[in-house]
Order: sequence, then C-alpha cells, then structure tokens
Amino acid sequence: MTNRLQEYLTEHRAGHLEQLSEFLKIPSISALSEHKGDMRKSAEWLVASLQEIGMENVTIMETGGHPVVYGDWLHAADKPTVLIYGHYDVQPVDPLELWESPPFEPTIRDEKIYARGATDDKGQTFMHIKAVEALLKVHNELPVNIKFLIEGEEEIGSVHLDQFVDENKELLRADVLVISDTPLLAKGKPAICTGLRGLASLQISVKGAKGDLHSGLYGGGVPNSIHALVQILDSMRDQDGRIQVEGFYDKVEELTEQERAAFKALNDDEEALKKELELPELFGEKGYSLLERTWVRPTLEVNGIYGGFQGEGVKTVIPAEAHAKITCRLVPEQDPEEVTALLEKHIENHTPPGVTVTTKRYDTGKPFAAPVDHKVFQLAAKAYEEVYQAPVAFSRMGGSIPVVETFAHVLRIPIVLMGFGLPSENFHAPNEHFHLENFDKGLLTLTNYYQKLGRE
Amino acid sequence: MTNRLQEYLTEHRAGHLEQLSEFLKIPSISALSEHKGDMRKSAEWLVASLQEIGMENVTIMETGGHPVVYGDWLHAADKPTVLIYGHYDVQPVDPLELWESPPFEPTIRDEKIYARGATDDKGQTFMHIKAVEALLKVHNELPVNIKFLIEGEEEIGSVHLDQFVDENKELLRADVLVISDTPLLAKGKPAICTGLRGLASLQISVKGAKGDLHSGLYGGGVPNSIHALVQILDSMRDQDGRIQVEGFYDKVEELTEQERAAFKALNDDEEALKKELELPELFGEKGYSLLERTWVRPTLEVNGIYGGFQGEGVKTVIPAEAHAKITCRLVPEQDPEEVTALLEKHIENHTPPGVTVTTKRYDTGKPFAAPVDHKVFQLAAKAYEEVYQAPVAFSRMGGSIPVVETFAHVLRIPIVLMGFGLPSENFHAPNEHFHLENFDKGLLTLTNYYQKLGRE
Repeated sequence: MTNRLQEYLTEHRAGHLEQLSEFLKIPSISALSEHKGDMRKSAEWLVASLQEIGMENVTIMETGGHPVVYGDWLHAADKPTVLIYGHYDVQPVDPLELWESPPFEPTIRDEKIYARGATDDKGQTFMHIKAVEALLKVHNELPVNIKFLIEGEEEIGSVHLDQFVDENKELLRADVLVISDTPLLAKGKPAICTGLRGLASLQISVKGAKGDLHSGLYGGGVPNSIHALVQILDSMRDQDGRIQVEGFYDKVEELTEQERAAFKALNDDEEALKKELELPELFGEKGYSLLERTWVRPTLEVNGIYGGFQGEGVKTVIPAEAHAKITCRLVPEQDPEEVTALLEKHIENHTPPGVTVTTKRYDTGKPFAAPVDHKVFQLAAKAYEEVYQAPVAFSRMGGSIPVVETFAHVLRIPIVLMGFGLPSENFHAPNEHFHLENFDKGLLTLTNYYQKLGRE
Repeated sequence: MTNRLQEYLTEHRAGHLEQLSEFLKIPSISALSEHKGDMRKSAEWLVASLQEIGMENVTIMETGGHPVVYGDWLHAADKPTVLIYGHYDVQPVDPLELWESPPFEPTIRDEKIYARGATDDKGQTFMHIKAVEALLKVHNELPVNIKFLIEGEEEIGSVHLDQFVDENKELLRADVLVISDTPLLAKGKPAICTGLRGLASLQISVKGAKGDLHSGLYGGGVPNSIHALVQILDSMRDQDGRIQVEGFYDKVEELTEQERAAFKALNDDEEALKKELELPELFGEKGYSLLERTWVRPTLEVNGIYGGFQGEGVKTVIPAEAHAKITCRLVPEQDPEEVTALLEKHIENHTPPGVTVTTKRYDTGKPFAAPVDHKVFQLAAKAYEEVYQAPVAFSRMGGSIPVVETFAHVLRIPIVLMGFGLPSENFHAPNEHFHLENFDKGLLTLTNYYQKLGRE
C-alpha cells in the first residue's frame, strides 16, 4: 500500500463514482427477456471501461445466453496470474414501490450508493476495475498478471458459464481466482469466505385415485394424496429439524472444537436476526448455533407444496394429487447425487399404502471448501487487515454459488472469496446499496493484495 | 304410473334434454364471486321454467347471498303437500384441463349428459320440474300439492338457508320434503338415504418470518412454515387414518351388531371400487368396512394445501406462509361447533415453536338420521321398485346436506332423500355426468310417487 495509490484514489474518487453511476443506470436484469438489449449495453460499457484503463484483448464473448466480457494484462513476467470474476447482471427490482429512490437512478445518501446492483455485483466488479486502473496509472505496470472474466448470468444460475469455463480453460488459466460477491462479517469486520454449501433438489408427486373424489362419498374410505404427502414429509425431519433420512449425515464432518470456538468468537447476534425477521423464535437442529446451522450443517427444506383446492372457502374434495419441492443444502463431503438417492429411498420406504409416489430431480451443486492454508489466503487476510485494522474472519456461507465449484473443479486453482458488501445491504431486495467506506477500503485492499502477490 | 305419462315423457324427451342443456350452460358457481351474475341468471331461468309448466306464485326471493326460487301449485284439496328442495348452484370446475368436454358446454356421450351440475344438482332439480310438468300436461291437475324451493348456496354450505327456512316456515309448510341429491346404491339399485354425515371445516394458516427467505442464507436456522404445517397435519391422523384429535370420537355411537349385519348384507363390492378409482389399495380406519367408514364413521380429510413455490423447477425459498383446508364428516351425535373447537385446540397444542398459526372456520352441518318407519318412505320405496324392478336399499350417505338437518328441525316433517345419481358420476370433480337412463327412470319414479301419495 503506497501513499501514491491512496492519493490517486482520493483524487479520482468523484470521477469513479460518476462512472459507477453510469454503469448502475443500465437495467441489466438477466432474468427478464425485455432487458436483453440492456445486457448487451452493460457488456459494451465494460469493454470500453476495461480498454480505457489499459487492459488488452478486451472482447465480448458469446455464450448460449448473455455474453461474457474478457480482458487481460499479461506483462508481469514470472509473476502470478490473478483471474478476477464478477457479474454485470442484477436481480429483478419488484416490489418497485418499496424503493426509496428508483433502482436504476443511483443516488448517494449518507455515504451509501443506492441502486440495484450497487453491491451485488456491479459495484464490487467496478471496484476491481478501478483497483487495476490505479495500479497501472501510478506504477505504469501491474505487480501481477490480470485476467477479467465478467459474466451476465450469475443471478439466473450461471446457466452457460460451466460450458464456457470448460471450453476456455486455456484462456482462463491462472494461479488464483479472486471473487468479490460475498459479504463482510459486519461493519469493519472483514471476512474471507472459505466454504459454500452445495445443493440437491427434488420434486415429490403423490397420486391417489384417478381423479379428485367427493369427501362425503369417499371420505374415510380411500387414500388422500395430501395426507400421504404430509406423512412422507413429516418423516423426513424430527421436531427439531434434524433430518431423519437414513444415511443423510454419514459423510458430514463433525465440527472440531477449534472450529466451534472460531464460530463462537464471531459473536453472531441471534436476537437481532429474530427481530429483523419478525420471528418469535429461531428454529433448527439442537446443539448447533445459528451460524453453525446455516454455514456448516446440511439442511432439508420444503420450498413449496400444493395439492387439492386452493381457492376461497372450502371444497370438500379428496385430492387425487399432491406435490412438494424439496431442496437440501449440503456440506463437505456430501455428494448431491448420493444424497438425492438417499432421499428417494427414504420416500419409497415411507410411502403409505394406496398411493403412488414419483420423484423428479432438479439442480444440484457440490459443496465447496477452500484450502485455507494456501498462501494466497494468508496474503489476502494480511491485505485486509492492513486496511481495516481488524482481524479477518474465515467465514462460511450457507448459500451456493454453483460456478465456484465449477471453477475449482475445472481450473484447479485456489479461489479467494473476498467480498466488501455488508449482509444488511439488501441485495436481491428493494433499496440495495453499497457503503462507500467499503468501496474505498476495497480499492485499497485489492491493490494491496496484488502488490503482496507480486512480491511473493 | 300410466302409459299416457310414459308416452308424454318419451315424446318430449329431446325437448327436455335441450332445456336441460340450456340450464347447464349457465356457470352458476356459488363459491366464486365473479359468477354472481350467473347465479341470478340461473334463478331467472328457473322462474321462467316453473311458470311455463304452470306453477303459481313463482318468485325470486332474496337472501343475504344468492337468491332462492319459490313456486307452488296448491289446488289438490285434501291432498298432502310435497315440498321439493333442489339447488341450482354448482361446484367450481378446476382442474379444467381434466375435462374431456368443457364443463359448461353440455355434451351427451354414450347416453350420459356431461356438464358441471349434470347430476349435482341441476339435472335432478330439472327432473323434478319435468315430472310435475308431465303430470299437469297429461292430467290437467296434480295428485298432490307441490311447492318448489330451489336454492343457490348448497355447495357453499347453504349459508343463508337456515335463516330463510326459519323466516318462511308458513310458506314452506308441507307434509313431506323430497330431495333428489343423493345417489342410487349402484346401477339399477335404487336407494333411499336415511342418514347423512355432518360437516365441520377449517382453514389453517401458518406464518413464519415476515417474508420468504433465501434457503442458502437462512436454511437450517429459521422455522419453515410448510414443515410446521406438515407436522400439525400429520399429528391429526395416525397411519391408518384414525383421527388423533383428542375427544374427537367421544360422542360417536358405536355400531350395533344388527347395524353391522345390515351393512354387510348390502354386499358392497370393495374390489370393484378399487378398480374403478384405479387405486392399488383402499385406505382407512382399521376394523371397519368401506361402507361403515364412509357412511357412519367420522372423518378428517385435508382438501387442499398450498405454500411457497409452485412453479416449474426449483426455487430455493423458505416460505413465510403455508395453508391447508380441512373438513370433517360427522356422524350422530357429533356437534360441528364442538368438533371445530377440538380441532382448534389440537392445532394449538401441536404448533411447533417459531411459527404463528391462525384458523378460520367455514361451513358446518349437523349429521342427520331419518325416521324410516313413516309411510312416506314406504311409498317412495314402492314407487322406485315398480320402475326399477329391484328392491330399494335404505342407505346412508357419507356426504352432508347441511340444510337437511335444518329442515328436519324447523319444519318437523319427514324428509325423503330419493336421488337418481350414481356414485361414479364425478360430482364435484371433472367430467361430472348424469346417466340418461336414470333421468328417464327418475321422471317415472317421481310421477309414480306423487300419484301414490295422492291416493293415500
């Protein structure tokens, strides 16, 4: 970290924020086809922006969906290569009426910039571009080789990126992958995310009689598909939420005392969450804290259920069909395919007489755990600590970023998830924002990190 | 039964079926407010139809909801007065995609007329009108005095009819009430229904966090409203369908040996039903036959359930809300209000931590048992037997016609439930239909019955 870098960033801060506003103004909602043109416009904006700071080979690369933007600078001979991943697509904005300022008219209030994508992930992607710009402008060269890979489909499951990564292994070859799309632990508390949960998903469909029946004529005499479904679902968890599917926990690694102590040290505020979610009580597997339950314990949640009459009032029908959707969050070393097979077997074993049950498999994602003893993590932690003047937490995240597992699997390089957002910044919700404090500190942390990597 | 009556009915059959089609075309779904206009249209159609056959004092009478149609013919001095009750409202039609021909485009296939309401109860109500028409046209007078009372809220629990009957006791005064809204025992096997189950109904709504949550971030850490609902519902019945709600069976009378023998003598074909409904097995309370379970044992069935994501594929959401609709069929001496209170108490006692549960009461109906030794039953049986050339069964029905109990209680006259539908005619389900064989025989049976009543 040099004074000249800090000076450069301070001097250009207003201009940078203006550029960020320009970027945020483009409504790049990947889920909605009417924004297809805006996706292209965003990609073109990134191309211009990367070219302007001196990146080379900047290009829009087509996929089966929204395009990927690539650019590199590879003149740091004998230095490591950093691949930076980000995404320029954003979530839909409804309910629009809950936004205090329109989602695509960026507004700075109280040292936070409000807009859809401010933190997830246009703001953080832009921060990466400006960190590289600062290094190049101040030193006329970069301490490491840099490759940018910015996609437009993260919010819709990175549907085409697996194939893209597979087909461009050579182009993307690097020594470390850096992603800023995970939160800090809290204000002033930096975190490197070292684990993501995986995913298994299943639809259960129960079929009773050939059609809906009148509950007066047949009630008490024939199977009811909803009761059967309810019985199956209820057999899958006990009253504390511990999963009863045979073999489900077999490959789950128990937490060490050290890990538990580390989680405890994070001082997670369960009371604050209850209040925020307006819940009388939290819920979950006995013997584990909230952080443990959501970061490192596997789950089974019913995400949707439907069957029979759903209208106003009452209809005295015995429904022929009932359906439920289930997803499991998985932790190392659980395998999504194996877990799905266990679920299917459990369902088969718990199907009551008189009904037929079928299942349908959906998305899966393998859990991810980073090899935190690698020096790229130690250097990232140092870079953070020098800027934030606070220790770095090695956190986990309960969600899945499926492409992370793909990167790990295909590129076989360490992945450093060093984000600068805050959990409270309403990503995916109205009034998304990004604290400028972390925009500034993020720029310093990243430039600091690349310099450290270059010196190794 | 005269040859002239039979001739008249044969000669006018095509015209009658055309008129029935007209009536069935009106989508008189009482449960859905967008059909309010169709309810009125149905009532007006009935007024015109009753006037046309020569009924007097024909009028639409307002209630707090859908109107009642009344008409009479009271010139048979010293003869008994028959009150005929029917209903012009029908059940909703979803799932629409399962109908082979649209529910409100009546179609005759294979000597059955297909349409919503074909058998329940527009078809059978229409049959009563045509029976009276035939008697009047052929004999220029009726053998008995006739009063028609046709309501529009039977499928939503006759919500305003109790009050209407109470306020119009004088107008409705009669010697016998005839209703055709119950099924024959089987094809060619007439039945007079001497008992109906009552009804209690409840909606359960479970609320977790203030909104849907991301299952990656929160999964395993917070209550899931669907799991909570599933747990509550599963606690209400055991694996054989025996109801676990405390006190539920307290007032249920156990069957006598004699009653059980009478049920057994009906030789109900459980295998045939399995085949007809395409069920691998029937289901229900251990130790009771199918007839016993559906006629004289109380039930608890979930009629509908919904919550969370119901679209295609998967959405990794922890749903904030989940809902279920429950109805119980009740037997003498169970009281609907008491049973509903027991359900509510059970739900309260079985609500898991972290969620809030609310319930909403819907329709109720008291169970009913007829005094079968009265001569109006013996004459009805004779009328049936002469037309069907088969003995009449005194059956029970698992369904509820809540207003029957009101009639019994307020008017204090015998109620003859002589229906002409078949249990397999899909009432309340897609592809509802009515066998024209029973439309024809019904007309003959009813005219025969009124003549017998007039001769007594």
